[in-house]
Amino acid sequence: MQTRTEHDTMGDVEVPSDAMWGAQTQRSVENFKIGTERMPRPMIRAMGLVKKAAAITNAELQQIPHELSQYIVNAADEVIAGKWDSQFPLVVWQTGSGTQSNMNCNEVIANIANQKLGNALGSQKPVHPNDHVNRAQSTNDSFPTAIHVAASLQINELLIPAVQQLRDTLNQKVIDFKDIVKIGRTHLQDATPLTLGQEFSGYVSQLDHGIKRLQQALVWLYELPLGGTAVGTGLNAHLDYAEKAATELARLTGLPFITAPNKFEALAGRDAAVFASGSLKTLAASLNKIANDIRWLASGPRCGLGEFHLPENEPGSSIMPGKVNPTQCEAMTMVVAQVMGNDTTINIAGASGNFELNVFMPVIGYNLIQSIQLLGDACNSFNEHCAVGIEPNREKIDYFLHNSLMLVTALNPVIGYENAAKVAKTAYKQGKTLKEVAVELELVTAEQFDEVVQPEKMVHPNAK
Amino acid sequence: MQTRTEHDTMGDVEVPSDAMWGAQTQRSVENFKIGTERMPRPMIRAMGLVKKAAAITNAELQQIPHELSQYIVNAADEVIAGKWDSQFPLVVWQTGSGTQSNMNCNEVIANIANQKLGNALGSQKPVHPNDHVNRAQSTNDSFPTAIHVAASLQINELLIPAVQQLRDTLNQKVIDFKDIVKIGRTHLQDATPLTLGQEFSGYVSQLDHGIKRLQQALVWLYELPLGGTAVGTGLNAHLDYAEKAATELARLTGLPFITAPNKFEALAGRDAAVFASGSLKTLAASLNKIANDIRWLASGPRCGLGEFHLPENEPGSSIMPGKVNPTQCEAMTMVVAQVMGNDTTINIAGASGNFELNVFMPVIGYNLIQSIQLLGDACNSFNEHCAVGIEPNREKIDYFLHNSLMLVTALNPVIGYENAAKVAKTAYKQGKTLKEVAVELELVTAEQFDEVVQPEKMVHPNAK
Amino acid sequence: MQTRTEHDTMGDVEVPSDAMWGAQTQRSVENFKIGTERMPRPMIRAMGLVKKAAAITNAELQQIPHELSQYIVNAADEVIAGKWDSQFPLVVWQTGSGTQSNMNCNEVIANIANQKLGNALGSQKPVHPNDHVNRAQSTNDSFPTAIHVAASLQINELLIPAVQQLRDTLNQKVIDFKDIVKIGRTHLQDATPLTLGQEFSGYVSQLDHGIKRLQQALVWLYELPLGGTAVGTGLNAHLDYAEKAATELARLTGLPFITAPNKFEALAGRDAAVFASGSLKTLAASLNKIANDIRWLASGPRCGLGEFHLPENEPGSSIMPGKVNPTQCEAMTMVVAQVMGNDTTINIAGASGNFELNVFMPVIGYNLIQSIQLLGDACNSFNEHCAVGIEPNREKIDYFLHNSLMLVTALNPVIGYENAAKVAKTAYKQGKTLKEVAVELELVTAEQFDEVVQPEKMVHPNAK
Amino acid sequence: MQTRTEHDTMGDVEVPSDAMWGAQTQRSVENFKIGTERMPRPMIRAMGLVKKAAAITNAELQQIPHELSQYIVNAADEVIAGKWDSQFPLVVWQTGSGTQSNMNCNEVIANIANQKLGNALGSQKPVHPNDHVNRAQSTNDSFPTAIHVAASLQINELLIPAVQQLRDTLNQKVIDFKDIVKIGRTHLQDATPLTLGQEFSGYVSQLDHGIKRLQQALVWLYELPLGGTAVGTGLNAHLDYAEKAATELARLTGLPFITAPNKFEALAGRDAAVFASGSLKTLAASLNKIANDIRWLASGPRCGLGEFHLPENEPGSSIMPGKVNPTQCEAMTMVVAQVMGNDTTINIAGASGNFELNVFMPVIGYNLIQSIQLLGDACNSFNEHCAVGIEPNREKIDYFLHNSLMLVTALNPVIGYENAAKVAKTAYKQGKTLKEVAVELELVTAEQFDEVVQPEKMVHPNAK
Repeated sequence: MQTRTEHDTMGDVEVPSDAMWGAQTQRSVENFKIGTERMPRPMIRAMGLVKKAAAITNAELQQIPHELSQYIVNAADEVIAGKWDSQFPLVVWQTGSGTQSNMNCNEVIANIANQKLGNALGSQKPVHPNDHVNRAQSTNDSFPTAIHVAASLQINELLIPAVQQLRDTLNQKVIDFKDIVKIGRTHLQDATPLTLGQEFSGYVSQLDHGIKRLQQALVWLYELPLGGTAVGTGLNAHLDYAEKAATELARLTGLPFITAPNKFEALAGRDAAVFASGSLKTLAASLNKIANDIRWLASGPRCGLGEFHLPENEPGSSIMPGKVNPTQCEAMTMVVAQVMGNDTTINIAGASGNFELNVFMPVIGYNLIQSIQLLGDACNSFNEHCAVGIEPNREKIDYFLHNSLMLVTALNPVIGYENAAKVAKTAYKQGKTLKEVAVELELVTAEQFDEVVQPEKMVHPNAK
Repeated sequence: MQTRTEHDTMGDVEVPSDAMWGAQTQRSVENFKIGTERMPRPMIRAMGLVKKAAAITNAELQQIPHELSQYIVNAADEVIAGKWDSQFPLVVWQTGSGTQSNMNCNEVIANIANQKLGNALGSQKPVHPNDHVNRAQSTNDSFPTAIHVAASLQINELLIPAVQQLRDTLNQKVIDFKDIVKIGRTHLQDATPLTLGQEFSGYVSQLDHGIKRLQQALVWLYELPLGGTAVGTGLNAHLDYAEKAATELARLTGLPFITAPNKFEALAGRDAAVFASGSLKTLAASLNKIANDIRWLASGPRCGLGEFHLPENEPGSSIMPGKVNPTQCEAMTMVVAQVMGNDTTINIAGASGNFELNVFMPVIGYNLIQSIQLLGDACNSFNEHCAVGIEPNREKIDYFLHNSLMLVTALNPVIGYENAAKVAKTAYKQGKTLKEVAVELELVTAEQFDEVVQPEKMVHPNAK
Repeated sequence: MQTRTEHDTMGDVEVPSDAMWGAQTQRSVENFKIGTERMPRPMIRAMGLVKKAAAITNAELQQIPHELSQYIVNAADEVIAGKWDSQFPLVVWQTGSGTQSNMNCNEVIANIANQKLGNALGSQKPVHPNDHVNRAQSTNDSFPTAIHVAASLQINELLIPAVQQLRDTLNQKVIDFKDIVKIGRTHLQDATPLTLGQEFSGYVSQLDHGIKRLQQALVWLYELPLGGTAVGTGLNAHLDYAEKAATELARLTGLPFITAPNKFEALAGRDAAVFASGSLKTLAASLNKIANDIRWLASGPRCGLGEFHLPENEPGSSIMPGKVNPTQCEAMTMVVAQVMGNDTTINIAGASGNFELNVFMPVIGYNLIQSIQLLGDACNSFNEHCAVGIEPNREKIDYFLHNSLMLVTALNPVIGYENAAKVAKTAYKQGKTLKEVAVELELVTAEQFDEVVQPEKMVHPNAK
Repeated sequence: MQTRTEHDTMGDVEVPSDAMWGAQTQRSVENFKIGTERMPRPMIRAMGLVKKAAAITNAELQQIPHELSQYIVNAADEVIAGKWDSQFPLVVWQTGSGTQSNMNCNEVIANIANQKLGNALGSQKPVHPNDHVNRAQSTNDSFPTAIHVAASLQINELLIPAVQQLRDTLNQKVIDFKDIVKIGRTHLQDATPLTLGQEFSGYVSQLDHGIKRLQQALVWLYELPLGGTAVGTGLNAHLDYAEKAATELARLTGLPFITAPNKFEALAGRDAAVFASGSLKTLAASLNKIANDIRWLASGPRCGLGEFHLPENEPGSSIMPGKVNPTQCEAMTMVVAQVMGNDTTINIAGASGNFELNVFMPVIGYNLIQSIQLLGDACNSFNEHCAVGIEPNREKIDYFLHNSLMLVTALNPVIGYENAAKVAKTAYKQGKTLKEVAVELELVTAEQFDEVVQPEKMVHPNAK
């Protein structure tokens, strides 16, 4: 591999000739050969946005020349667009402040700009990675700002629309299935009936709530650490920088970012991320319930509950037509398990700040972004390849409903509690239907039975 | 032990003669000899409140006679007040719906009422535990309602005031310490200075945020399942019951309870609890940061950071005056570890509903209430026995501040970056102060040094 | 409340007149009003055992007079037996070393001894809580020793026998059910058959493995910190003390305790507890699988899988005979959720030692002991009230088996793969049995079908 | 993109022309667009090993022709070696059995073999992915076998050597530092002294234990599910297949793999993975303690504990010589947080099997392999870039030791407890040394003081 020699305060570093990164990135490449988990794309995009907003603000506040600012903005735009992702080689497992990834971004943007101006990679002229790209920033404020920006964008652009779409699909089922009366189940045991539409309405309500809880969590992610610089005091930043840079990020993203009211918290705590993960794991709990219900209700085809057909997406077995493995449910519940583990990681990391800084930032960013991405993608996949195609098996639903002993409750007012109990017990013991037994015992006629025992009247409040 | 014979649908049960509970409670006592964790006091209180609200509502809707309702209300008031806690012998590890604890409450209230009316324990007359006390309820809606009521009350009455009080104490320190300039620390390493007041302002901001996040979580706990009855349809309840009962609970508690918009979710999901635990673990993360900072800053007295004195609450050692173990910090961080584990439990339990019911309710209630209680009590204890008495060790703080090499940054504009670096390096190497070296190297006079290097000018944004 | 005045190095303390504890315990009562979770019984017993072993060893090494040692031993025996549990009022949320509980034990034992000798409570004569009861100990070594002893005893005396008993019950089912062929289920979908005995053999194997993993974890709990005293050096202990005291604890308990090979780890790490919790959560995972399978297989009675009948322990519903809620399964799975949360707590706590001490010891002890107790009790309860009474519903099992389309695989060698597939597809589409379709399509006669399709031949390796 | 048309039981699928995978893989690519986490390299290698062992065993048992077996073996060897990693495009979030990745491997191996024989990709001739490569296997047994093989190899080849190397480095420090007496710290407060070598010996002991616990966990990973086929009965496998295939895997890897004693457990439980994760999180807890101690002891350089110098790997700050951020410690503690979160994920996933299968296998494999890899890599990185270069700051260590008030305990026998306490209190109050005060108070001469107060005599058991 051909290299060029770069220099930092500790001496010379050999950097691959065509690398857009510089000495500090290279040192991290060499010093942290840990795992394969690179800084995720949404973080790179967000770092680009932070650099862009900072450059615009610094020019406006006359901290850097307008011309240089423009070069930084153009270079940052390419980073934001994903053109240079290959130039972000660093893994998550590096310095806990994310300094090396922040410097990686500074170095790449400076090199893009300088290269356009005809200067050699590593020349650091006229755009200097520290003096210009990182101006008025410290990793300590810019990296957590990038986490907030990345998570906010991903929640708004990916996750909420995905949940909303799944919610809308399920809500269509609420309408479609509103007249399908089915047996209820509590403790996994037969219970009083409800409609299939009602059952799905619970899922819709869970997702509606889930979206609102994501929005509650976003409020705190919108508070940006930028402007706190190294320890929260804002040393080396202009008095107006924090507020203006947040406003600029709001303008660039269309999200209501503001400057964090307290920068000491903003650098040393990561509570907004911890709470956001709390909203993600709550959504995960909802999705677990939904995916589990659906796969159980679709279990079978002959030896399970079999109240649903799910779309066939893959061959189950060449000799077993009708065997549709609920693979989308399985992917979803695996994602849920991952999100819950990520939550534990974020809790531990978020609780571990000391004094003026939390040094678990890359692991927090990585897990938070992964949880958002997985939930968003899984909702989309589950929606498209499973939820839209759920079809009720009306025959099976009816069979269960009418075989259930629980309908006997409707007879109470007519034949009295004791007789009703006798009917149920006898039916269970002899493996008969309630109707058979009730007629056999001459408690009601078949016609009376049919008139009284109407499950569709048992699906709403009825006491008078 | 003397017993009386009670009867249920499965046969006879021997109940201790003087027990206020009945057959179903007794069966649980015998069938679930698991652990020692009883239903916590706030749950008993909340079950009493639910029974009271139900009785009032049922009377209003003419579902039970007003006279019986009044007896139930009076009995429930005693349960609410804690008079009968000894009569709730059941452990958490029972049926997952909490049926047995719900029946325990029904049985106790019926016995209290009937006893006042001169009837024997177990007579079930005139107040019947099922027909009257449990009227228009199923465990499936009343038990999760009790969880929401208990958690809401504990958060409002215990936790938020406790956090607020600690926040106010710390905010007083922000004022008291606003002029104490100290060294900052990032990565545990010396950094640029800030004031001690600024450092504490981060804690205050974390707690301010924490309270708001608790309030965000309360919104969902205020949605009550009551009225869903067995499967969410409201079968056996009056059409107006759900809304009126929620309104009554709001009136009784002063909290803005409403009826849950969707009862199928309300019985089968426990997302409000999962999210509430998410806000609790976030608060725990904040408190961990605060307690850790304080114990590290108070470490020593000679061989640690020693920037604080903490109150002496217990003898450290008979021969080691000045050894104050940071015991309140330790209790707090142990509580944090517990709350984070409880969060895992609640996540697993909350994600595990099936069809029309979640059968992990007792374990959810137990952990949620424990987390609230521990955080509330720990904040109060930490506040009273530690936070109020924190005293800065100004001598040590000053010593660190003026020995830190980080102040050299202030010399940059005067002697240039390279000379400043030389001063710092030499000072570090020779173990001298910056001032000694700067003067020795004839870069500045002692007077100039003192004029330029003023840490108190480094604690705010300063770029122009 | 009447009090007596005691004295420690910080001054006077008012202690309830009849309390067996002293000044240091009293300070903790007042300073740590956090929660209601007291030090559990197995910890009190273990602290008593540690004091007894220390007293015997100290006498043997001539560190305390034999006569005093004997008084301490006698008093400790009463503590071990549980006679003085009410005199251990301290909660878990105290100093992180457990010092206050250790002093509580020292004070109680001294008072028991001195009272027997006719001296006043609090006299500290002739048996002094520090100089004699705590001789050659520090909380820092004796408290974690108590954790190891308590956990080891509970695992050996409660948990392993409980798991073994459940395992034996399930193994009896393996024998009883060995000839019951049933449908297999993978992905919740019908699959090839197995015997019910085979299904249960998986549970037995999980529990067999679980016991072995508990034994693997015990190895490390058997290494005792005692003898490390304050920081691991053994300062103030006799050179032979550590080994002799461990030997004495082994003698007293019948367990192979040894002195930890490295006392610095033994005080500052709690890895043995973290690993023990790892074995407990693995056992919990196994029990979750077992309890879930059993409740799903018992679901119904009409609208579920219904392959089992479970014992009826409580009335399900007065009108729903046959509705047996799987309450023991529910208690078990709630315990599992608790154990997994406790594991998170123990992980966080165990990872948080600093320098010469881990100060999360009470929370580790509390959670570890709770996990052991809950798993042990839940296994016993589940065994007695559920597992022993599991009865197969042969009719339902047969129905599923013979309706399953998966049996078609047996026809492959006779009619060829394509025809077999056609049979299965047609049967599924038309809702018929395989036999009906195969005969209708004139691929085989009814007799041939019965000869070839024999599920009992599909339950073992058969390729040749 | 150019495609070729492949066919499976559900119809035609367009596969990229040059893809080595086939129809089933392609369906998964299209149906599971979730996240970016592909099956990790060690899993691909292990799947290759399973296919190789199966082919050899099947040939030996005359289930497939020897010639085809040899082609499969050769193709598998290339997969094992990593030549075809790009042909494994599937993500973790797929069917929960891993079927699609198993088929991916079958398809790739068949195509490699057939291509070598001059046949077209997708021809499935003469080597058929199902009939030959997957012969006598089901995903349900071969995928969990691959998890066991992958984890076992990674633990043996990567993790244990990495831990061992770090252990050896730290053990060298035990020797190097054996005579450096330093102040102990408990509760973060000054305590009695120990040697720096003793402190490091605790770390060594933790790692020694950690390796043994990994070995305990390996025992269960060595039990292989292979041979259970679809539901554990071994249907379609030869009677001798399970044992021979396990023996073959043992031969190929040099690890003592055996066939799992119970295949029903082996398919439906994942306890060995849950327990292995338990050993990993315990190791993580140890490493957290070690990394935290080291960064705290290296904190400063002026305003922290400063007992160590760590190697400078990256520029801290251009103006702050001596500021060495403990970045390797930070990477390590982030890895610890990740491993603990992964453990939660594995616990949830491992507990969630149903009936004859656990369908959380890909997420279990992913997290288990990630935990092993991260811990192994982090140990190597930490060792090379941090541990080997730890240098004590003897001046600072001595300063703390001799300023500590704790040494006063040594004076007790000479001047009595009360006078010693007076010396300590006065020293603390007046900010003097013990010696100054003791001499000032005329309790000892300076010479006597130096003779009596010798910290190096306080670092071992000394009671007589």
